[in-house]
Amino acid sequence: MNESSCAAVPLEWVGPIRISGDTVRDEVEVPLATYESPLWPSVRRGARISTMVESGILATVVDDRMARSVLLEADDARTAYTAVRLLEHDFGQLREVVSNGSRYAELIGLHHQIAGNLLFLRFEFTTGDAAGHNMATLAADQLLDHILRSVPGVRYGSISGNYCTDKKVSAVNGILGRGKNVVTELLIPREVVAQRLHTTAARVTTLNIRKNLIGSTLAGGIRTANAHYANMLLAFYLATGQDGANIVEGSQGITHTEDRDGDLYFSCTLPNLIVGTIGNGKHLGFAQENLRRLGCRAERAPGANARRLAVIAAATVLCGELSLMAAQTNPGELMRAHSQLERPATRIGAQR
Amino acid sequence: MNESSCAAVPLEWVGPIRISGDTVRDEVEVPLATYESPLWPSVRRGARISTMVESGILATVVDDRMARSVLLEADDARTAYTAVRLLEHDFGQLREVVSNGSRYAELIGLHHQIAGNLLFLRFEFTTGDAAGHNMATLAADQLLDHILRSVPGVRYGSISGNYCTDKKVSAVNGILGRGKNVVTELLIPREVVAQRLHTTAARVTTLNIRKNLIGSTLAGGIRTANAHYANMLLAFYLATGQDGANIVEGSQGITHTEDRDGDLYFSCTLPNLIVGTIGNGKHLGFAQENLRRLGCRAERAPGANARRLAVIAAATVLCGELSLMAAQTNPGELMRAHSQLERPATRIGAQR
Amino acid sequence: MNESSCAAVPLEWVGPIRISGDTVRDEVEVPLATYESPLWPSVRRGARISTMVESGILATVVDDRMARSVLLEADDARTAYTAVRLLEHDFGQLREVVSNGSRYAELIGLHHQIAGNLLFLRFEFTTGDAAGHNMATLAADQLLDHILRSVPGVRYGSISGNYCTDKKVSAVNGILGRGKNVVTELLIPREVVAQRLHTTAARVTTLNIRKNLIGSTLAGGIRTANAHYANMLLAFYLATGQDGANIVEGSQGITHTEDRDGDLYFSCTLPNLIVGTIGNGKHLGFAQENLRRLGCRAERAPGANARRLAVIAAATVLCGELSLMAAQTNPGELMRAHSQLERPATRIGAQR
Amino acid sequence: MNESSCAAVPLEWVGPIRISGDTVRDEVEVPLATYESPLWPSVRRGARISTMVESGILATVVDDRMARSVLLEADDARTAYTAVRLLEHDFGQLREVVSNGSRYAELIGLHHQIAGNLLFLRFEFTTGDAAGHNMATLAADQLLDHILRSVPGVRYGSISGNYCTDKKVSAVNGILGRGKNVVTELLIPREVVAQRLHTTAARVTTLNIRKNLIGSTLAGGIRTANAHYANMLLAFYLATGQDGANIVEGSQGITHTEDRDGDLYFSCTLPNLIVGTIGNGKHLGFAQENLRRLGCRAERAPGANARRLAVIAAATVLCGELSLMAAQTNPGELMRAHSQLERPATRIGAQR
Repeated sequence: MNESSCAAVPLEWVGPIRISGDTVRDEVEVPLATYESPLWPSVRRGARISTMVESGILATVVDDRMARSVLLEADDARTAYTAVRLLEHDFGQLREVVSNGSRYAELIGLHHQIAGNLLFLRFEFTTGDAAGHNMATLAADQLLDHILRSVPGVRYGSISGNYCTDKKVSAVNGILGRGKNVVTELLIPREVVAQRLHTTAARVTTLNIRKNLIGSTLAGGIRTANAHYANMLLAFYLATGQDGANIVEGSQGITHTEDRDGDLYFSCTLPNLIVGTIGNGKHLGFAQENLRRLGCRAERAPGANARRLAVIAAATVLCGELSLMAAQTNPGELMRAHSQLERPATRIGAQR
Repeated sequence: MNESSCAAVPLEWVGPIRISGDTVRDEVEVPLATYESPLWPSVRRGARISTMVESGILATVVDDRMARSVLLEADDARTAYTAVRLLEHDFGQLREVVSNGSRYAELIGLHHQIAGNLLFLRFEFTTGDAAGHNMATLAADQLLDHILRSVPGVRYGSISGNYCTDKKVSAVNGILGRGKNVVTELLIPREVVAQRLHTTAARVTTLNIRKNLIGSTLAGGIRTANAHYANMLLAFYLATGQDGANIVEGSQGITHTEDRDGDLYFSCTLPNLIVGTIGNGKHLGFAQENLRRLGCRAERAPGANARRLAVIAAATVLCGELSLMAAQTNPGELMRAHSQLERPATRIGAQR
Repeated sequence: MNESSCAAVPLEWVGPIRISGDTVRDEVEVPLATYESPLWPSVRRGARISTMVESGILATVVDDRMARSVLLEADDARTAYTAVRLLEHDFGQLREVVSNGSRYAELIGLHHQIAGNLLFLRFEFTTGDAAGHNMATLAADQLLDHILRSVPGVRYGSISGNYCTDKKVSAVNGILGRGKNVVTELLIPREVVAQRLHTTAARVTTLNIRKNLIGSTLAGGIRTANAHYANMLLAFYLATGQDGANIVEGSQGITHTEDRDGDLYFSCTLPNLIVGTIGNGKHLGFAQENLRRLGCRAERAPGANARRLAVIAAATVLCGELSLMAAQTNPGELMRAHSQLERPATRIGAQR
Repeated sequence: MNESSCAAVPLEWVGPIRISGDTVRDEVEVPLATYESPLWPSVRRGARISTMVESGILATVVDDRMARSVLLEADDARTAYTAVRLLEHDFGQLREVVSNGSRYAELIGLHHQIAGNLLFLRFEFTTGDAAGHNMATLAADQLLDHILRSVPGVRYGSISGNYCTDKKVSAVNGILGRGKNVVTELLIPREVVAQRLHTTAARVTTLNIRKNLIGSTLAGGIRTANAHYANMLLAFYLATGQDGANIVEGSQGITHTEDRDGDLYFSCTLPNLIVGTIGNGKHLGFAQENLRRLGCRAERAPGANARRLAVIAAATVLCGELSLMAAQTNPGELMRAHSQLERPATRIGAQR
């Protein structure tokens, strides 16, 4: 691949990050590909802190599913409602349609919305180690065929009705789930907060309330309360062959902190991590290699590699979020970091 | 740069796209870097159509500014309010602070929010050909110093109060403006719609209402009504050295279509294109080269290159959005395209 | 009750409205209590039109439930997750707790959100003919006691965690359901549109797209696409003893229209009608009388009277929405109506 | 007015509430009309506390304006943009159109949104002591006439484009302003918190973060972070002849609290109080009398009576919000209050 046929996004390995919890118990270095070079030292600082806490970052996988919504036009709302009842009743049949059409996809949920004569059906799947966009679309296509043949009074509207929803801002993804939902938590001793982050638990918590919670609310945010999840996610996604456009929903997460007698409880909740270890992008040499080095190409039950990847992504997000939040408690620190790090032409990537 | 020190995102040039309007009158090929290879033919189809319309895609730059909000703690709301009145009165002085500290940044607006004793000040700047994250942060830092010295009863809260807002979902960016606001429009003759897109203006318009407007509303979207702006934006941003995480706010745009006696009026409104032709990422060889080939490194008045870039980005978005929307009017077309294009392991990148 | 001990909100009966569908097949007059007198002729015009269509307004009850969310503090996210799994497994036991504590409340659903160490549990109930605020709170209180006694590692956070959500703007209520979800539809012949509404199906549909869908999106609305549901709901709620503050979520509905060869398909989707025929406010003489006259105090299965009431409310909303939307297609009509109706001091109540 | 021609909403006077600040320095009793009788003791408790703090509730009026948006169809986005520039340039002329058409309305602001070929113009006015719906609509109508006559390439779309926005959920009202924006603050000594509210500043603050900020965010709220503003607003609005449907936007406010060494800082920010002392509803005998008793029918400069009313409304909201928040820190307190207060048929109105 020559220069002109790719965008060569600079990549550094950062870490290790210490992680514990139900899915990963490990110390891992992570690859971050970004044009914003100050992101590396920012995440590095957080990673260093994770290793100073015995159990490291506690990561919990709360959910794992992929969704696709189709859109049907019904004769009227009553017909739409009847169709929903019928499909719920025949859910087993729908499951068969999916399992017949795919080795990995499994139908695990069905939601709907009726607006006038329009029917939005949201199918939820497990998709093994794939992020699952494609598997979900294929399955939805087959389900749609089945429904159009078997349910009276409904017609094709669209293979995607935006109630999925992919690469767009929504509330539905956080409420019903789409992708891996991972919570990461770190309890940082008071002295580490002081010496490494040059701040206190009280000041970080005050900042989190005012900036991430109140500021985001004033800005008209929706299900968003963080400083810069998108930065870490994009760099991690690019480095591992993910579809980076999914940082749109990935960015919608919640930072929650507590001052626990001077120790800092710092958590990041990421409800919509859409990642996989197989599929588009992952076949590229560097992506394969990076995934392998992350331990995400091992022999495991279907889905386990992808969940490991999601946990590592989430831990990476915590490292960068912690570092920036701490910096913003101190007047001028962000610009000082910038002046030191961005020579000649760059800026502190972690700024927002 | 060796394999291990970058993420080599595959890049293809697509086009030309024909563009007219107040900023660009040209036919331009565009570079798209993506792991989702079906994005290329999808945008290519739209580009081809733009050349079949005499005036091509009409692009209008509606706004151009960068914003950063700082957060102050005041004694109480009254003190916050008094501070705002004072700063509005001394706006000229604030402008001087900014112009003294930067060759390119110019302060053009000041907004605020008061919540209890908290004061969020949102500064708006023009930043020449830079996207302006850094310039805005530096200027905000200097303004903050000035304010803390000159306004009684207020204290440092944060250099960023999330009322900016950067790389996060919001309503404020669309309402007050952040980045370039570009509207693109294309009026496609009925025969072209039929022969090239295999659909009709009526069907595209019906789909747009149901999917992009109603579906997005049901999903709990905020200021978002499109199919997949994020895909085109990320690919374009990566190819031109932009901070790709800004696709989060970039994704919040509105597709509006009309059936005009069989001809298809198709428009994309992108209120938050955060792009520049200088600054981080643009110093990389391939980015410089790509920007040059796009005609965005020419001798022009400050800001003109960046606006040209924004217009081309917006036109690219229209091409991809048009192509996908047309495809989704036809049952099965998306998956058929996928089966043809994604051998062996990929999927239609434009899906969502 | 003397003048000084009440707010005597002027009330008129409007109608009849012709309604069909799964719940109500009837012509009913409806009571509207409002300070905005032009609301009456506005709804009256819509009601008149409903009687010109043979089947009248088709109303479909799509859902019926009440929700209350409690908030728990857990040791960490993993403990919260374990608690959720446990409660889902023991759902039968939770159902017993509720049925033991109430004659009418039945637990029908459990949702959750985990953010850091916080656990939000959203309980869903059927509550017979009561709107159910109280019944749901009582049941949630008992469930909370049960959980605090039986689930390790969780502590009391709040009896309400705002994930319910009551009398506040949200997306969760529309997505998961709270109150009665009713869709009303009316297909109005072309001539009636012309003669009675002085407009066309095409113009109403164009207006609906631009104003209710695009305008609301630009305004940063959330799950809202209508002109003035709140007006009709408040007047109807006050007249029937409902808790009028529930118009906040009631206002979040979607108007969808179609031009069907000149006939106007007009629909209103109201996902969150929180009404009852027993409980607070309904014991007042006039409320009882009004409910009786609406046929909502009859001997029916528990819940049937309340659903009838919700359907009538929804049909009333359609009448007022149709009338205003038609008026706004014509320049100046709103102000002309106002000038005629608001002598000397009033205004067209239906304006917004 | 006989029973059958009104909805007689029970009303009690509660207070006095002690208020200070730029607009009101007074102790005032407030009338609350509601079917939810527990609202009275709830607000009463908060009012009592306000009198135990020497300066009472500090209220600051941060903004005061009314808005109406019109919708225009333009030839294309460029024409829309040119129209905006023209109107901004001729703003003085627009101001004249308004002042010629009304004694009280004054045009003070103009905002716009362009989406494709659609142009939304948002006019902002001061409207004296009227809430101003009507005055704004009349002025918008005249402005529309003027624009249609003088600006080329634009056509009538709608007298209201939902970018106003009235009685609907939005972000625009909070960001750009609509109605009175009032912040109320109360600093409650530690002992009062303990003895009267049976809680601590720390517990109230923790609850506020978890419930009002995080819970509302998870629920997909937009610019909303409170427990039950809508309850107090509706009761106050009904008692004073206001258009109660404006509680929809009124409900979108932010409760912010701090634990100040054991003292409780408690604030309510209400950006969209849409109230007046003249106009619809205020001519009714009881409304006039109630406004008079509130001191809002005095001889004052235009607008001053309405601002006084808004401040009193906002202080009332604080009283009820404080009381409920304190109650929810204690397990079981809400239901105990309910059991005591709602005999035989009522419930604690302040619950949500």
